[in-house]
Amino acid sequence: MITLNSGTRAEILAEALPYIQEYNGEIVVVKYGGNAMTNDELKQDVIDDIVLLSLVGINVVLVHGGGPDISDLLKKIGKQSTFVNGLRYTDRETMDVVQMVLCGKVNKNLVSLLDKAGGKGVGIGGMDGGLFRAVRKTDEKGTDYGLVGDVREVHPEIVLDMLKAGYIPVVSSVASGLEEDTNYNVNADTAAEKLAVALKAKQLILLTDVRGLMADPSDDSTLIRRIKVSEVPLLMRQGIIKGGMIPKVECCVEAVRQGVERANIQDGRVPHSILIELLSRDGEGTMFT
Amino acid sequence: MITLNSGTRAEILAEALPYIQEYNGEIVVVKYGGNAMTNDELKQDVIDDIVLLSLVGINVVLVHGGGPDISDLLKKIGKQSTFVNGLRYTDRETMDVVQMVLCGKVNKNLVSLLDKAGGKGVGIGGMDGGLFRAVRKTDEKGTDYGLVGDVREVHPEIVLDMLKAGYIPVVSSVASGLEEDTNYNVNADTAAEKLAVALKAKQLILLTDVRGLMADPSDDSTLIRRIKVSEVPLLMRQGIIKGGMIPKVECCVEAVRQGVERANIQDGRVPHSILIELLSRDGEGTMFT
Amino acid sequence: MITLNSGTRAEILAEALPYIQEYNGEIVVVKYGGNAMTNDELKQDVIDDIVLLSLVGINVVLVHGGGPDISDLLKKIGKQSTFVNGLRYTDRETMDVVQMVLCGKVNKNLVSLLDKAGGKGVGIGGMDGGLFRAVRKTDEKGTDYGLVGDVREVHPEIVLDMLKAGYIPVVSSVASGLEEDTNYNVNADTAAEKLAVALKAKQLILLTDVRGLMADPSDDSTLIRRIKVSEVPLLMRQGIIKGGMIPKVECCVEAVRQGVERANIQDGRVPHSILIELLSRDGEGTMFT
Amino acid sequence: MITLNSGTRAEILAEALPYIQEYNGEIVVVKYGGNAMTNDELKQDVIDDIVLLSLVGINVVLVHGGGPDISDLLKKIGKQSTFVNGLRYTDRETMDVVQMVLCGKVNKNLVSLLDKAGGKGVGIGGMDGGLFRAVRKTDEKGTDYGLVGDVREVHPEIVLDMLKAGYIPVVSSVASGLEEDTNYNVNADTAAEKLAVALKAKQLILLTDVRGLMADPSDDSTLIRRIKVSEVPLLMRQGIIKGGMIPKVECCVEAVRQGVERANIQDGRVPHSILIELLSRDGEGTMFT
Amino acid sequence: MITLNSGTRAEILAEALPYIQEYNGEIVVVKYGGNAMTNDELKQDVIDDIVLLSLVGINVVLVHGGGPDISDLLKKIGKQSTFVNGLRYTDRETMDVVQMVLCGKVNKNLVSLLDKAGGKGVGIGGMDGGLFRAVRKTDEKGTDYGLVGDVREVHPEIVLDMLKAGYIPVVSSVASGLEEDTNYNVNADTAAEKLAVALKAKQLILLTDVRGLMADPSDDSTLIRRIKVSEVPLLMRQGIIKGGMIPKVECCVEAVRQGVERANIQDGRVPHSILIELLSRDGEGTMFT
Amino acid sequence: MITLNSGTRAEILAEALPYIQEYNGEIVVVKYGGNAMTNDELKQDVIDDIVLLSLVGINVVLVHGGGPDISDLLKKIGKQSTFVNGLRYTDRETMDVVQMVLCGKVNKNLVSLLDKAGGKGVGIGGMDGGLFRAVRKTDEKGTDYGLVGDVREVHPEIVLDMLKAGYIPVVSSVASGLEEDTNYNVNADTAAEKLAVALKAKQLILLTDVRGLMADPSDDSTLIRRIKVSEVPLLMRQGIIKGGMIPKVECCVEAVRQGVERANIQDGRVPHSILIELLSRDGEGTMFT
Repeated sequence: MITLNSGTRAEILAEALPYIQEYNGEIVVVKYGGNAMTNDELKQDVIDDIVLLSLVGINVVLVHGGGPDISDLLKKIGKQSTFVNGLRYTDRETMDVVQMVLCGKVNKNLVSLLDKAGGKGVGIGGMDGGLFRAVRKTDEKGTDYGLVGDVREVHPEIVLDMLKAGYIPVVSSVASGLEEDTNYNVNADTAAEKLAVALKAKQLILLTDVRGLMADPSDDSTLIRRIKVSEVPLLMRQGIIKGGMIPKVECCVEAVRQGVERANIQDGRVPHSILIELLSRDGEGTMFT
Repeated sequence: MITLNSGTRAEILAEALPYIQEYNGEIVVVKYGGNAMTNDELKQDVIDDIVLLSLVGINVVLVHGGGPDISDLLKKIGKQSTFVNGLRYTDRETMDVVQMVLCGKVNKNLVSLLDKAGGKGVGIGGMDGGLFRAVRKTDEKGTDYGLVGDVREVHPEIVLDMLKAGYIPVVSSVASGLEEDTNYNVNADTAAEKLAVALKAKQLILLTDVRGLMADPSDDSTLIRRIKVSEVPLLMRQGIIKGGMIPKVECCVEAVRQGVERANIQDGRVPHSILIELLSRDGEGTMFT
Repeated sequence: MITLNSGTRAEILAEALPYIQEYNGEIVVVKYGGNAMTNDELKQDVIDDIVLLSLVGINVVLVHGGGPDISDLLKKIGKQSTFVNGLRYTDRETMDVVQMVLCGKVNKNLVSLLDKAGGKGVGIGGMDGGLFRAVRKTDEKGTDYGLVGDVREVHPEIVLDMLKAGYIPVVSSVASGLEEDTNYNVNADTAAEKLAVALKAKQLILLTDVRGLMADPSDDSTLIRRIKVSEVPLLMRQGIIKGGMIPKVECCVEAVRQGVERANIQDGRVPHSILIELLSRDGEGTMFT
Repeated sequence: MITLNSGTRAEILAEALPYIQEYNGEIVVVKYGGNAMTNDELKQDVIDDIVLLSLVGINVVLVHGGGPDISDLLKKIGKQSTFVNGLRYTDRETMDVVQMVLCGKVNKNLVSLLDKAGGKGVGIGGMDGGLFRAVRKTDEKGTDYGLVGDVREVHPEIVLDMLKAGYIPVVSSVASGLEEDTNYNVNADTAAEKLAVALKAKQLILLTDVRGLMADPSDDSTLIRRIKVSEVPLLMRQGIIKGGMIPKVECCVEAVRQGVERANIQDGRVPHSILIELLSRDGEGTMFT
Repeated sequence: MITLNSGTRAEILAEALPYIQEYNGEIVVVKYGGNAMTNDELKQDVIDDIVLLSLVGINVVLVHGGGPDISDLLKKIGKQSTFVNGLRYTDRETMDVVQMVLCGKVNKNLVSLLDKAGGKGVGIGGMDGGLFRAVRKTDEKGTDYGLVGDVREVHPEIVLDMLKAGYIPVVSSVASGLEEDTNYNVNADTAAEKLAVALKAKQLILLTDVRGLMADPSDDSTLIRRIKVSEVPLLMRQGIIKGGMIPKVECCVEAVRQGVERANIQDGRVPHSILIELLSRDGEGTMFT
Repeated sequence: MITLNSGTRAEILAEALPYIQEYNGEIVVVKYGGNAMTNDELKQDVIDDIVLLSLVGINVVLVHGGGPDISDLLKKIGKQSTFVNGLRYTDRETMDVVQMVLCGKVNKNLVSLLDKAGGKGVGIGGMDGGLFRAVRKTDEKGTDYGLVGDVREVHPEIVLDMLKAGYIPVVSSVASGLEEDTNYNVNADTAAEKLAVALKAKQLILLTDVRGLMADPSDDSTLIRRIKVSEVPLLMRQGIIKGGMIPKVECCVEAVRQGVERANIQDGRVPHSILIELLSRDGEGTMFT
């Protein structure tokens, strides 16, 4: 609890006004993951932020993966994982585990937390209402990743129906098969991006465990606060965007190109990072526009 | 602008969550007057607070009088005022002035301020949509106060229609005649109270130029923060409630007796006093329940 | 009360059928002013006509100015008026008077009359719901008229919301500032014209104190009953349209060019002139199509 | 065409205002029959009146029989009629004729006339949407009238659905069987009365070929303009109500007892008799309250 | 009653699933005539099929003629019929008979049957709600057919309003006059076709007394199950489509060309022929696409 | 595929009409379990039946448990189960497994099957939208079953919202904690019963692996087809209801007592058992009324 007098508190609330006005009635898709999902205190902050945002008329949609919990259960059942190009090869048994952990554990636990915080959460898997349809992921070499999928179709009606009925949708990154009779394990960042596009969201937020895009990754003060998607190729060539950042940046670029107004890569380790980004003049992380 | 880091700001926003949840979808009637209406900075705070509250789903209805502006115009036109039992005797010419100042100046200027702050304000006089109908005020002795009126009927549909269409209603304390073909000058506190009852409001707030009800009026530390309406008669007998406080307390008591959950007498001189009362654990002034 | 037998009365009602059918569900904007506003009997006729028209499914919107009442109050407060090119120079004090008289007196008195006649009137100032936004009026020579404004934006939603909710809107010719933080005094004819266009009204009626456009102004029998807007320039050149008629004719021409089906300049001194125009084969004054 | 100046016409329209206000949004059931149905000019008046009333927001429902047309067709097909207690014995062949004439000829011709007059008429038989369900009419003596029916159930939803969709319902006095698999010929006065009750109509009007109830039937000046249903038994005993008037009066009494506010027996031979009754201070015929 | 065990029955129901899905929410217009209308058992099947289809979410609209009943009544009244080019010359007396039989007898009896089967039927004549407007039929030679009409305008709102309110519309093939003040006798096949187009129906079904289009009319096994409208001209030239089949085929071709997805000529003598066509893989008769 | 001619098929469809009419618009809650859930062919039948029922306007809600899958996963992770009074003691780790298997595997796989069959399925856990709230189960002796819960509150809004939006809800038998901050494992039969009551369902169906209630369990021909809840106590005393049947019978009795019209215990091993029960005269198993 912050020890400030009530006047200061009220003034701070009042300063949020223009930001609330800007986002009122809009949709914001948050890809939730990393420390913000494993640290209980940060998790509670995210939940509280989302309930608050939904009360001030901002439609937040949470998209989550759940790598660590998947690894835990695989380990428990003594299942050996094979990795292909850095992606876990997903056989049918692994897919079962992925689906159980994401849709059954992570998703429903988030819904329970929203419920406790006074929000009307509802868990949605990519198969509910035909939300995500995917095909087997592959590359030019025809690599086999098993049941890792690429989302090909998004049918956002169920999410819109839920938002309209006043629920806060929590979406698991699995998909039903477009061509084959199976479900797929899909990348949560990409699922969030494609959902943001389909929902005509105003903003996509990718919560990560880094501060954002930095000119010099070892120096927090070199954080790039705002970047145009047209400037991304140069930063790629300069090596400023590299490694694990590349796919995340590509999600942001793609979202903005398809009509999402803004996309952020920001630090989920900062308490109330979502509120700071949406309701203050400071903002958080790197914003792509 | 408060110099606090963004994390602290976000935390303060987050702490407002339970209060926003409690008032979401509810109606709060604010009687606006005193310094909060004459001091430009305080006025701007009230306006900002109301726009913010309306964005977080709280339906605020502003009821105002406008004594000083009425006196100004009367003075300008060289009209002498007669007082009867402390009430300004209202002849037809004075009534014209009252109506022009309240409905034409004070009301519309508030609407303009709301508009500038991004709110959809709409001005309503007591005659619009038949909102207030009054009869000549009198007492057991049959005193004549001229066109001072007692509100006898409230038809709140126009206010509800406006709230439903997303407007912030600003209501002037005048009324059309129930029996006579004239408009009346009505007390703004009473009008606010009766409107709160008719709207089934959750709370009535009377903004005044005092801290609230105090055991010892000369000592701010003796502020009574919460009182049951059943305890009021004793405080009346003890002389703790006296003078100009009596009619304000009676408004609160009547509102609560008729179903309004809470009624506050609070200090409009405190910046963001409405936000503090509604969205913080501190509260403001004296609450009647 | 006309002494006719009930059969004749019924027949006259029946003859109004095709006119009621034609206007059913349409919007008619009436600029109200002149004798029809100062003579109590004529005023009552206008009010009754509007309530009747609203009952037969015609959406009437009343736009008013109020020159004489403004002059009265200015005189009372001992304010000297300066005129520039025939327009009253409007300093801030004058603007306050304009707003008080129009929004506080004229508007609310009309609402009271509608209320008494059984109509659900609602008063709207140009600042309510952001209806009219204006900028300082000026001309090629850069003449300064003070706070006389030119309406640049019309946001008709509040009027449409009121019509939909069953109210009869009464609109005062003031506007909030588009660029400056002040309200403006705007010409009521022009405000009515621009509102008619924004509302996609079927007809605009300007009530005046003349019979209409006459080939020979001294001879009532030369009244021009119907004229195409394309014929106006010739009449201007011939001097048949001249003096105070010019701006009124320009309002009509502009309204028709922007999509209003018909615009009338007609004589408000004729009892029930609005009913005659809308619900009989006779029509009133000069119609521009 | 009445030769009156437009001012007088407008004034007459204006005088209809309070009556239009009184009936606005209400349902009026008119039993249509007698001369008003056989005389082409009177028929046109009825049609015009109904279209006008529907435009001014009064929901008129027309219920008709059609004795003369039934007799005509029976005669044409060489069918001999048997009468029992004054009622035409209705065998199956007669019932076919009744249904064809009422639902196929009279009803649809009325709808065509409404259509031509600009009204959206829709024809409804008692079997449409299950509107009327009847059983065989009989008396204490067990007299057999064939397929003459007593309406036992009214399901007014179809009429309400049509009114809500903006249609003017024209209803034929036939009914489907409640117990037997046949349709029935039902009395139009009774059908109108029961429909008025089921629709919670404000008024029932029975158009007849007499002036109304008269103290002395040979003297028009003895017309009883208004009577309470409680006074009817006395007039029955005095023989003032007698003969063919008895069942009509009983319909009115029953309607009022079941909640219809007013019921009129009036003269369909008077042009625009419905308009006179509903929209003027004169009224027509005898009103039961 | 079929003697099959409940499992088999359930399986058959289950097999209808894809067909129900395909037609769910769609409109199907059925031209009803021939044996299916004169044979009581077949008639009951049609009625049951339609109620069932409406329960599974398919909007069926029934359009009917009624030749045999018309002939019966004409004969009864001793009216001699004249035929012109195979069409019955329709003078005013004949038109009266046509209208009475179609709108009063056939239509209402169908409604009664629907009512008994638990459906909410409603009878509609071509004049109700201005559904069909026709002009005198003629040909290049200017032949006079009396009041035989060609439908020129379809205003399908009344049918759509009824469907929306949950009713099953039964439509008689008569029309009001577009130019003349009379009603017209119109061909039921054509009326059904034009209505299907105006309603944007998915399918038009013409029930006839033949199996469909056959390569060799004497050999049922040569039934053409499906044909493209582009193939029709060749079959015309080959004489496979000939005689009474020509106008029916033209209706189907026209319907498909105007946007109806499918049109069928099928055998109304087959029990439950409509159900077979719509809800089974077998289909019935010849389908034009 | 049954080899029957299309006529027979159509007749069977037609015979379902009265049953479809009876259940149209009603809610039926099906507790799904046993062989019907483990046998792939039976599972497909259930899915097809539900999609069909939803198309014919019957609102089916599926409630499922998933014992065998839970045991499988527990075994895989090497978790030993302890049983208390026949109930699996549920520690936190077991609860995690229960939730993952029910909400993540069973539920989503059913949704995928509905999706493939053309239905709009949506998976709901007891925590979504606060559907089920439970407390720790216990008995008079204070036995500890761990996180086995008793449902104390049902908030059916989310299920009703989904039905209204056209989805088929699939509900997992887990609940959020009413008093403790944990989720609970709840009995699926009881959850289905309480949900049926809260939804004001017309019927509750418990799919089991027995024929129903039998006077002599070894003799199928002694199946009791229909029983009043008032007759249950006698059968209990007679030992006809015993063992595992007792809790299922108690669910049915309680459902009926709380307003559900009918409750069935029926044999999920019979193909299309749900269709047979709801859409045929045969019915299935034992019905409690």
